[in-house]
Amino acid sequence: SLSPAKEVECEGSNPTKKMSRAVEADGKLRLQGLTDDSPIRLRMEAYVKKLQEQITSELEKVDGQAKFKKDQWVRAEGGDGISMVLQDGKVFEKAGVAVSVVYGMLPPAAVAQMRSQHPNIKASSTESVPFFATGISCVIHPHNPNAPTVHFNYRYFELEDENGGEPLSWWFGGGCDLTPTILYEEDAVHFHKVIKEACDKHDPRYYRDFKKWCDDYFYISHRGERRGIGGIFFDDLEDKSVDELFSYVQSCGNAFVHQYVPIMERRKNMKFTKEDKHWQQLRRGRYVEFNLVHDRGTKFGLLTPGARIESIMMSMPLTARWEYMHEPDVKAHGKLMEVLKAPRDWIPL
Amino acid sequence: SLSPAKEVECEGSNPTKKMSRAVEADGKLRLQGLTDDSPIRLRMEAYVKKLQEQITSELEKVDGQAKFKKDQWVRAEGGDGISMVLQDGKVFEKAGVAVSVVYGMLPPAAVAQMRSQHPNIKASSTESVPFFATGISCVIHPHNPNAPTVHFNYRYFELEDENGGEPLSWWFGGGCDLTPTILYEEDAVHFHKVIKEACDKHDPRYYRDFKKWCDDYFYISHRGERRGIGGIFFDDLEDKSVDELFSYVQSCGNAFVHQYVPIMERRKNMKFTKEDKHWQQLRRGRYVEFNLVHDRGTKFGLLTPGARIESIMMSMPLTARWEYMHEPDVKAHGKLMEVLKAPRDWIPL
Repeated sequence: SLSPAKEVECEGSNPTKKMSRAVEADGKLRLQGLTDDSPIRLRMEAYVKKLQEQITSELEKVDGQAKFKKDQWVRAEGGDGISMVLQDGKVFEKAGVAVSVVYGMLPPAAVAQMRSQHPNIKASSTESVPFFATGISCVIHPHNPNAPTVHFNYRYFELEDENGGEPLSWWFGGGCDLTPTILYEEDAVHFHKVIKEACDKHDPRYYRDFKKWCDDYFYISHRGERRGIGGIFFDDLEDKSVDELFSYVQSCGNAFVHQYVPIMERRKNMKFTKEDKHWQQLRRGRYVEFNLVHDRGTKFGLLTPGARIESIMMSMPLTARWEYMHEPDVKAHGKLMEVLKAPRDWIPL
Repeated sequence: SLSPAKEVECEGSNPTKKMSRAVEADGKLRLQGLTDDSPIRLRMEAYVKKLQEQITSELEKVDGQAKFKKDQWVRAEGGDGISMVLQDGKVFEKAGVAVSVVYGMLPPAAVAQMRSQHPNIKASSTESVPFFATGISCVIHPHNPNAPTVHFNYRYFELEDENGGEPLSWWFGGGCDLTPTILYEEDAVHFHKVIKEACDKHDPRYYRDFKKWCDDYFYISHRGERRGIGGIFFDDLEDKSVDELFSYVQSCGNAFVHQYVPIMERRKNMKFTKEDKHWQQLRRGRYVEFNLVHDRGTKFGLLTPGARIESIMMSMPLTARWEYMHEPDVKAHGKLMEVLKAPRDWIPL
């Protein structure tokens, strides 16, 4: 799904113009320290950076051996990011957790395109508009075929008032989804249960609506299969106050460790066969297909000159496999294939 | 590149209407046997089917162990195909050679879209137009990292006169390209030399123009690299009589075995290291990226409901690998990377 950096770079920011006055003043605010009155963009930025530290630290405990490597990068046009990747660990084949902060000017064409998806945008489509985006994204591929791949992404976007007033428009987006190689229904139920609880604290409709959105989004149409057993997905979320929604997104982000770590603890040391590993590699191929053919963020990112390719490709598995006319072992994987074809309500809606 | 089946299915043929009278009569002509006066579409169909037999037989000799498996399929809306795949052989990791014949009605929207690429189309864009397409495509991934991956595709397309007269429009397309993991300049020169000779027999400009087109087409823009060391690529070819161009395409198709088999004989038994294999797997990842992100035929095919996915995905390697922030070993592969970034004229133009 879209990470802010990708989304923004694809929209074609213009480095020759300046940022908004509000964003210009952010550097000073960051140094002074944030309070509950600080702009949400800065609190979200601080939140995702803290969440990245917390999650990578928990994942290192699960791995028990390998450590994340940290890459910091600076965007010439405005912004920076931290990519943390653990590769070829004891438990994890590849785990990436990345945060980014990106700001600058959106050219008129990009604003016009954005308006087509966000009808409420309060910005002229004939002039460049300053923007700010920040978010966290994460993809984890474990070695053990009994342990599922997982992905999440939470992000915040603002279009700025040039004169430093309140943002013209803002919204949150994000979601999480689980991709098992071998289906354990209790894992699917657990993953959904934890994120449902996070959703229910904020709005009784969120889980139901965003679960459906997730099933629709992670669809590999050319295979007639979903990528996995779902989770939640939302975009353009602006239906409550920015403080309420920031609180919602924090509940989601904070839920991740509780969604995934208990599953990993159950699965990471399970025995598996050569056939299990073979099946996992074929499913990894499907993951690659979704990301390169269907995922909006990846597609936009890859077709954008100047995008940070290594951050985009962080989501790829270490290895994948394609066989001609492979037929899944129905006894072993028939139930998984059924669920990928017809999404199930893991929790009564 | 586009195989006819993919191209056609993507254009969205309409199964409720019939084919042209000329194509209706083809069944009888096929049974009677073809002569030099038979329509080119039938002679091209017969040619690609014979070429498939010849090439798979030569490749089996190179492998020395594995045999191609043959799948025949029939298209409900009109046409058929033969996919031949050799998987996990002694020499070849995965080799696929497919032919297809597809015909039916192109809906007005598809005709209009086609006109944008083919300004000379003589067909109304307000009505469905009968079409016919046939072609051969081939992708070969060897095990040995010293041996290059290769691809070729030659195809013929017709828009039909409903009343059974001469085709309203027709054109040829195709090409071949080589993707080494380890660069042997003599292999690149040989591959280009053989196809240049085939081109030169028909038009002194063909090799020069189509070599350039190939370098432009097989560009992985998000990596700033070509897929391989090139070859030729052409589309919409209709600049000579249909007989002359059929003869040209046969020269290209017949050249393939001479382009590739001598290279394979030199490379298939060479010793290689673990590092060579590792590098090959990373390059396979790039091949996947080109095919899923940039290749027109694959993209169209995958986004088309009802396309034969297994035929489209036949081009994928058996295995591939993605590492975060991998840096090529400059001493071992610096020259290859240079050539992928700045295509070389392997033969003076």
